[in-house]
Amino acid sequence: MNETLRAFMDEKIPEIERELMNQLAKSDIPDVLHESMTYSVEAGGKRIRPLLVLAVLHDLDSDSADALRVAASVEFIHTYSLIHDDLPCMDDDDFRRGKPTNHTVFGEDIATLAGDAMQAMAFQALAELRETNVSDALELVGLLAKASGAQGMVKGQVLDMKGEQRVLPLAELEEVHIHKTGALLSYCIEAGAVLAQATEEQRTQLRRFSKNIGLAFQIQDDILDVTATTEQLGKPANSDTSSEKSTYPSLLGLDGARAQLKERHEEALDALQSIGLGNSVLQLLADYIIERNM
Amino acid sequence: MNETLRAFMDEKIPEIERELMNQLAKSDIPDVLHESMTYSVEAGGKRIRPLLVLAVLHDLDSDSADALRVAASVEFIHTYSLIHDDLPCMDDDDFRRGKPTNHTVFGEDIATLAGDAMQAMAFQALAELRETNVSDALELVGLLAKASGAQGMVKGQVLDMKGEQRVLPLAELEEVHIHKTGALLSYCIEAGAVLAQATEEQRTQLRRFSKNIGLAFQIQDDILDVTATTEQLGKPANSDTSSEKSTYPSLLGLDGARAQLKERHEEALDALQSIGLGNSVLQLLADYIIERNM
Repeated sequence: MNETLRAFMDEKIPEIERELMNQLAKSDIPDVLHESMTYSVEAGGKRIRPLLVLAVLHDLDSDSADALRVAASVEFIHTYSLIHDDLPCMDDDDFRRGKPTNHTVFGEDIATLAGDAMQAMAFQALAELRETNVSDALELVGLLAKASGAQGMVKGQVLDMKGEQRVLPLAELEEVHIHKTGALLSYCIEAGAVLAQATEEQRTQLRRFSKNIGLAFQIQDDILDVTATTEQLGKPANSDTSSEKSTYPSLLGLDGARAQLKERHEEALDALQSIGLGNSVLQLLADYIIERNM
Repeated sequence: MNETLRAFMDEKIPEIERELMNQLAKSDIPDVLHESMTYSVEAGGKRIRPLLVLAVLHDLDSDSADALRVAASVEFIHTYSLIHDDLPCMDDDDFRRGKPTNHTVFGEDIATLAGDAMQAMAFQALAELRETNVSDALELVGLLAKASGAQGMVKGQVLDMKGEQRVLPLAELEEVHIHKTGALLSYCIEAGAVLAQATEEQRTQLRRFSKNIGLAFQIQDDILDVTATTEQLGKPANSDTSSEKSTYPSLLGLDGARAQLKERHEEALDALQSIGLGNSVLQLLADYIIERNM
């Protein structure tokens, strides 16, 4: 990994994880609920979403005492969606990131409620921002609700479920991903831009960046599912192929998927260059997302 | 029913239901998700929570163009909690209010996602208030998140589930209800008070009112479960008794539960009288909640 990015991640990830634990440390949460929420938040992952929020602030030379709280907030939304996604009535996964899923440890009832509570906690965190002016904070609430709800992430999950029953044309596959993973990734960039008081031109180009990086993220996911080993992924490799789900490699072939990935990557970098962020942490994060092998 | 209350409800309930449908009419929601969300919102119920919001505004001689949106928002939270509560991994109920539950019609996966999306929609509605000043709107976001999350409604659900395995002492039973149903009912009163710019003294007494009315609501629920018929309830009567769950009648006997109900009712009315609302829609709603037979 690039050394600048490594240093950025080594500095920020522990801060993000401390903030997540701070948010979870509210009094009055029943023990089993707290344990269940903490379990999934600690299960970790790459913290890509919070890192994107912080990278925007960094690259725009901005700083906000609320940045970590906003970053943690989106990680709560992401984590709640994983807990619910793994439930037997959804994807029915027993393992995620090499660890037993929430419901296999705490039961489906607690897992459902832990996800519900985590969604509320995300909005509570935004309501408790202290340095951000209230109209920006309220804008973040609206953007996060839209990105995560029936017009965003949940929409993508529904389209994905419906799509499993047939072969999707490429446009529909993109529609799934733009919502299922793209909406929340785009929110991260947008949230960073709000906190950094970015200009309209910056926001427009950052949106172009995040749309392309969101799709690239998913294409790489699909490619890895074909090419990586089970050990690298922490979940069964080829799990998508075995369920005959439409993926970029299944629609375009592996080479075609890689060509798409390259195109998305280049457009994302072009968007950054157009606002003078050609050599930025965002660009390094984009490279990392696209070149990762797990 | 009292005629003044009847008139208030006849005026307000159709407005509330129109606002709920307006909120659901966002573009870009996939059909099956929209149908599932609409199904449970239309399944209705008494709209007690939105009515409480509107009653506070009415009784404090206040008006807000945002009142209906705030009222609808809390009904979304209530409805999402019912959808998730009915799931097989939770209470496993096939019927609610005499209609098949959401998951029996749309499947558990869509029901889970419809609940998730409905929670986001509640916060999105608050972010889109137009007449309320932004700091009040953000306060509502924080209050609603706290009332519905790990320190509020979800906490109550967890305590309730854990409590099913043994006989609870009265104090623990109250702790369940103060969170499971009380927190959201109290939020409704508080939200009305925020919109009405109520004084500190009014807010304090309204909190005393809502705490007592919340418990009274639950005591009456428990009493009805023993005394009402299955037809009146729209769900199997004696469902709590048959699962050996702790209830007010099981702990205090039917007479003891009725005495508690009377005491809570009187304290709620005393709180209203102390701020000159002895003869108000809130008082009539309290009477209705306590004297209802379904």
